[in-house]
Amino acid sequence: MATTCGGVAVIDFWANGFGMRIRIALEEKGVAYQYKEEDLNNPQRSRLVLEMNPVRKSVPILVHEGRPVCDSVAILEYIDEIWKDGFPLLLPKDPYERATARFWTHFIDNKFFPTQATFLKSKGEAKQEAEEELISELKQLEDVLGDKPYFGGEKFGFFDVAFIPFSSMFYGYESHGEFKLEEECPKISAWVKRCMERPSVSKILPDSVKMYELHKIWYGVE
Amino acid sequence: MATTCGGVAVIDFWANGFGMRIRIALEEKGVAYQYKEEDLNNPQRSRLVLEMNPVRKSVPILVHEGRPVCDSVAILEYIDEIWKDGFPLLLPKDPYERATARFWTHFIDNKFFPTQATFLKSKGEAKQEAEEELISELKQLEDVLGDKPYFGGEKFGFFDVAFIPFSSMFYGYESHGEFKLEEECPKISAWVKRCMERPSVSKILPDSVKMYELHKIWYGVE
Repeated sequence: MATTCGGVAVIDFWANGFGMRIRIALEEKGVAYQYKEEDLNNPQRSRLVLEMNPVRKSVPILVHEGRPVCDSVAILEYIDEIWKDGFPLLLPKDPYERATARFWTHFIDNKFFPTQATFLKSKGEAKQEAEEELISELKQLEDVLGDKPYFGGEKFGFFDVAFIPFSSMFYGYESHGEFKLEEECPKISAWVKRCMERPSVSKILPDSVKMYELHKIWYGVE
Repeated sequence: MATTCGGVAVIDFWANGFGMRIRIALEEKGVAYQYKEEDLNNPQRSRLVLEMNPVRKSVPILVHEGRPVCDSVAILEYIDEIWKDGFPLLLPKDPYERATARFWTHFIDNKFFPTQATFLKSKGEAKQEAEEELISELKQLEDVLGDKPYFGGEKFGFFDVAFIPFSSMFYGYESHGEFKLEEECPKISAWVKRCMERPSVSKILPDSVKMYELHKIWYGVE
């Protein structure tokens, strides 16, 4: 693997929010990496993925010096620990602030992500309920952001990296539902624009229309 | 809160595997804490939980110097960062080994835990399939353990703390299914016994029969 993947490689799919985290983090650190696309529309996993992540058979995978690191949160932590001295740090130094960043990251993975999936999949009353839940969760995040430029405070940090990929579906949520993010969550909306001014983010985030088109197929949206 | 909970408090439910992690970690560190039981059989959450974890309304919650830390993995990381110098460390120093411990912890949370729930809830052929999947996942963990005394190597570490609570349901799985853990996974079986020799584990892990009785009610096992 070390020869085929070079020093640092990321195996991912262009529309995978969890994987975008890894690519944004490496861009923020200024670490060069090779990108290998795994087409998640093909149910067959490539030999590379089966070899590098035999347990979960999923992406993203970071390959560093020939060794695979899997699971987006574990990879983010790894990146922050490996590229530490002389690199911008994603996690703050204070243990309580670190715990807060990790808590909200798990909130995205275990609460927000399932909610948006339910919203996209459901119809009628269930869709209405899921939309209300989605907006309510976004408002919770709006409160956490408050008047800070980033969730990490003055610095674009760990939770900014973990959450910003999912903004590439905000256009999809608005199109699918009956709300305007800018009206419901003006601070989150401004935060997305602020993040998009960062080359690390604008380079990695895919086109919102293309994202929604793919998700419409994935979630059977009519 | 600081006055009612003292310096360190854990809000948890006796049968909550995710919460046992926190209590075992504090026992390992030798940190004294106040324990507050939240009865998860009562669908109403206490005022304390609603106040300390308004976002997820769940336990475990670690209250440290009046501030709540939520989410079992975020709490474990926090404990390891706060009680660091002069305390046994749960995470290894090497970033790759740290990533591995985190990967397997997420495997328990996102793969093993849902699998065991499906196994307990399902009947007939679906139950048979879930049992096979459960054993296959336990065998994967058996391979990870290998001939080491602990997942953390010579030391009882982060992933040992994260996984050992779920061994309190092994009796339940055997009773519910048609397998003997000792035959399928002799190394995991020996690891459980080894961990149970640690006061931190034997003090916190609940009675296996009591655990299965509760889970039978929770999962509608006949």
